[in-house]
Amino acid sequence: MEKGITLLDSTLRDGAQGSGIAFSVEDKLMAVRVLDHLGIDYIEAGNPGSNPKDEEFFKRAGALPLAHSTLTAFGSTRRKGVRPQEDGNLRALLGAGTACCTLFGKAWKFHVDWVLETTPEENFAMIEESCRYIKDHGREVIFDAEHFFDGYKDDPAFALGALKAAARGGADILCLCDTKGGAFPEEAAKIVEEVSARFHLPIGVHFHEDCGMAVANSVTAARHGAGHIQGTLLGFGERCGNANLSAVIGDLQCKLGLPCIPQEKIGRLAHSARELAAIANWDLPKGLPYVGEDAFSHKAGMHADGVLKTPLSFEHIDPYLVGNTRRFPASEISGRAVVLEKIRKAFPQLKLDAASARGVLTDLKELEKEGYQFEGADASFELLVRKRLLPFSPFFELLHYHIYTDYGQNRTGASATVKVRVGQGIQLMAAEGNGPVNALDRALRKALEVFYPVLAQVKLTDYKVRVLDSKSATAAGVRVLLTSSAGTGESFTTVGVSGDVVAASWKALEDSIEYLLLKAGEMPPGDKTP
Amino acid sequence: MEKGITLLDSTLRDGAQGSGIAFSVEDKLMAVRVLDHLGIDYIEAGNPGSNPKDEEFFKRAGALPLAHSTLTAFGSTRRKGVRPQEDGNLRALLGAGTACCTLFGKAWKFHVDWVLETTPEENFAMIEESCRYIKDHGREVIFDAEHFFDGYKDDPAFALGALKAAARGGADILCLCDTKGGAFPEEAAKIVEEVSARFHLPIGVHFHEDCGMAVANSVTAARHGAGHIQGTLLGFGERCGNANLSAVIGDLQCKLGLPCIPQEKIGRLAHSARELAAIANWDLPKGLPYVGEDAFSHKAGMHADGVLKTPLSFEHIDPYLVGNTRRFPASEISGRAVVLEKIRKAFPQLKLDAASARGVLTDLKELEKEGYQFEGADASFELLVRKRLLPFSPFFELLHYHIYTDYGQNRTGASATVKVRVGQGIQLMAAEGNGPVNALDRALRKALEVFYPVLAQVKLTDYKVRVLDSKSATAAGVRVLLTSSAGTGESFTTVGVSGDVVAASWKALEDSIEYLLLKAGEMPPGDKTP
Repeated sequence: MEKGITLLDSTLRDGAQGSGIAFSVEDKLMAVRVLDHLGIDYIEAGNPGSNPKDEEFFKRAGALPLAHSTLTAFGSTRRKGVRPQEDGNLRALLGAGTACCTLFGKAWKFHVDWVLETTPEENFAMIEESCRYIKDHGREVIFDAEHFFDGYKDDPAFALGALKAAARGGADILCLCDTKGGAFPEEAAKIVEEVSARFHLPIGVHFHEDCGMAVANSVTAARHGAGHIQGTLLGFGERCGNANLSAVIGDLQCKLGLPCIPQEKIGRLAHSARELAAIANWDLPKGLPYVGEDAFSHKAGMHADGVLKTPLSFEHIDPYLVGNTRRFPASEISGRAVVLEKIRKAFPQLKLDAASARGVLTDLKELEKEGYQFEGADASFELLVRKRLLPFSPFFELLHYHIYTDYGQNRTGASATVKVRVGQGIQLMAAEGNGPVNALDRALRKALEVFYPVLAQVKLTDYKVRVLDSKSATAAGVRVLLTSSAGTGESFTTVGVSGDVVAASWKALEDSIEYLLLKAGEMPPGDKTP
Repeated sequence: MEKGITLLDSTLRDGAQGSGIAFSVEDKLMAVRVLDHLGIDYIEAGNPGSNPKDEEFFKRAGALPLAHSTLTAFGSTRRKGVRPQEDGNLRALLGAGTACCTLFGKAWKFHVDWVLETTPEENFAMIEESCRYIKDHGREVIFDAEHFFDGYKDDPAFALGALKAAARGGADILCLCDTKGGAFPEEAAKIVEEVSARFHLPIGVHFHEDCGMAVANSVTAARHGAGHIQGTLLGFGERCGNANLSAVIGDLQCKLGLPCIPQEKIGRLAHSARELAAIANWDLPKGLPYVGEDAFSHKAGMHADGVLKTPLSFEHIDPYLVGNTRRFPASEISGRAVVLEKIRKAFPQLKLDAASARGVLTDLKELEKEGYQFEGADASFELLVRKRLLPFSPFFELLHYHIYTDYGQNRTGASATVKVRVGQGIQLMAAEGNGPVNALDRALRKALEVFYPVLAQVKLTDYKVRVLDSKSATAAGVRVLLTSSAGTGESFTTVGVSGDVVAASWKALEDSIEYLLLKAGEMPPGDKTP
């Protein structure tokens, strides 16, 4: 029971079925990197058979250098009445080229009768043959037994029959899915124990949050023999969501001593959660266990006093263990250690004295008050520190921009003029674009490429806008996150905040250009005129 | 064990310690009404000793005609070394005039030693005397044993000593609090069983969400003998929040048959949750178990098809039982059946022939290819169907807009002119704003309010922008989601897609105005000129 537990994150598959969640291919690639850095064993990243967009993703994902994770494609067992090699879904699954595949099949007789409309024998054959087909192509197979808990309560022999079929087909992990989210911890414990006793293969679990039990069920299952847990790092998923893996990891690893990610990664937990939330353009709920901004925030005076006397009094674990921070919203004491650690990481050579550290922290606090958030915008953070602590002379100066956006006679248009000074040189450029920000971006690049040809290689790859104070909507402050990709393929994200979406975009744009020029080893102007 | 379970809702006390939650006296009075209508037994509504604002509330709350609930004031046991009648807190508690008081005291020796800094004997005396003092004034007393689970694990005799003291003092309910939120279901079960065996009084539980276990712990405790459960209807509370009572109620009453609110009230659950969220000015998370908008939403095509065949296939309970609704968000993953079902729901009177259904589906497919996504934008979906299938004459026609955004001499600005035609009338209006979209929004409203004064009541409450194809970033298509709130408090979301962020915003803006005018029963122009 103390064997290591493997985790499968399905943010990019089951999570993408959550409400309001949509990932572009670029988003998915970034998310894979985040999950790999955190040390998640399996990343279930798409369903190539049902979603053609996923094909492109898997093509590009194959080239990602992953340090820890195994990519997994998800799909159904073969259709009834066909041979595996004739099944388009299974072929698409192999086509994804992942080292592992998750195959799902029915473990509840009711579903076989009423949804699948076939016989038990054919259902088991579908499972066995599909597993064998994928195994024969050299892939690892996780078998997801859909509706296992409902199926087992209804007809244990049938439900176990599905697992046996998968085992005969060569599946490597048998995962019990609570597809409707109706299971409770005590039955999770009992059923996992009974099933574990019958198979030599690792037993996995996959819970949904419909009864508010997904985390409790997962953790309880792990204590009763489950060796594999599926979920999504932030709890995204169909209906009420999947088991929130950030809580599962915290509970298992920090509270129960059951390791599920490499121990040296546990300090990345909160940061990883925030990175992933930023990629999904989703506000991380402040109260999310372990990783939320307020998970260790003490608002009641009595609690804050207690924690200052001894943190154990009102904290169930040390927040720094999972990379989070103790907060006292009334008195604002937070952040310091985390920020210093981040600075040390970005500038390992830098000798950080107390006064300059304080300076950076003060700047940061000011900016956060304005609505900045540097998690997920590391390039802007690095620039901020560099400007504060190292000599920095600007690469260019904006003199003005004018943007004209209009609509009439059924067409829209936007054009911008930008005037910049670089050293002794001045450039005025104009460009048209799709909307004001794009027009501005184009005109600016046109002007700056005269001085810095390397900029021709930068591409903006993502652009996200969030309103900060939803009460005043289009008049509220907005935060823009801009992801750019350099010629090398490395991508980085910058942030800008303003009441004006164009001004906020400008700030993020400016940071992205400065950051790239620094990384490219360009020199600020001086005598560098065209 | 099958005796009825009483519930205590602490939204207005522990919930108010949650991040970003603040209630005015007016809010609190409205919230009490909501909780009373739902049939909650105890409403813990404030801490009169530590929060002077609560005094006014209790004064006014006394006059509320409550059908079911007992109001409860919350406060500490007496300070060390004073007599109860000399303790300002206890006097304030009585002063609140509630029929019930919750008194909290220490059940963990560590806290007595390090936070309270007194002897066990004095701690127990504080508990016993305070309970007796309140009881002697004719009030019901709930004793909240703070840190009971940690205390019991550390020193069971000490923790039980605190309960015994409360029982000697006449407490009516002994509530075991997991103040740090560190307990797990199995220990909750064990400890509640052991404690229940020792007392004839009802044993209550109070859990926090720090390990993601608050609901599971509460439900498990109820199955093992707890007769009283504390929490907050939406899970508000210190740090990660308290046990979410809407899930606890759903689990106990709908799944386990353990009644905790009057059976005729269970159909109000989702509605009550939404009312309370509106009072707190808080977006109800869509995935909240039982009550969230997406708790019974089927996005994956295969799930949707299954539910249409037989709801049991992918739903753990009937959504209508708790006053919620089955939803099929139109999305790229879902199919034909879902869309038709959605149309039937939005327009129950409409007779949908095959040809017009096909027409809507074709439109939808086209729009989805452009990047539209109607899940989360029901108002735009409804408009689309209406325009396709019912007579629709537009409320206004845009003749042009011109927006000027600029930066120079360190300041940014945006101004817009908009020209619209409504029937025979034409209006040209101009406005300034924070950025181009806000300027456009303002000018448009100024122009249209001349014709439709009802528009003065609409407020935009959220604005989100996503890039669709991240490869071309600022030049790529963008999707804008706009959430508006009508004068009635009902909010609705519209969507717009374009290569130009301003044009996309325009489309979402246009939909929001048309939708509101339709709902308000306004007539398209005709002779309606100013």
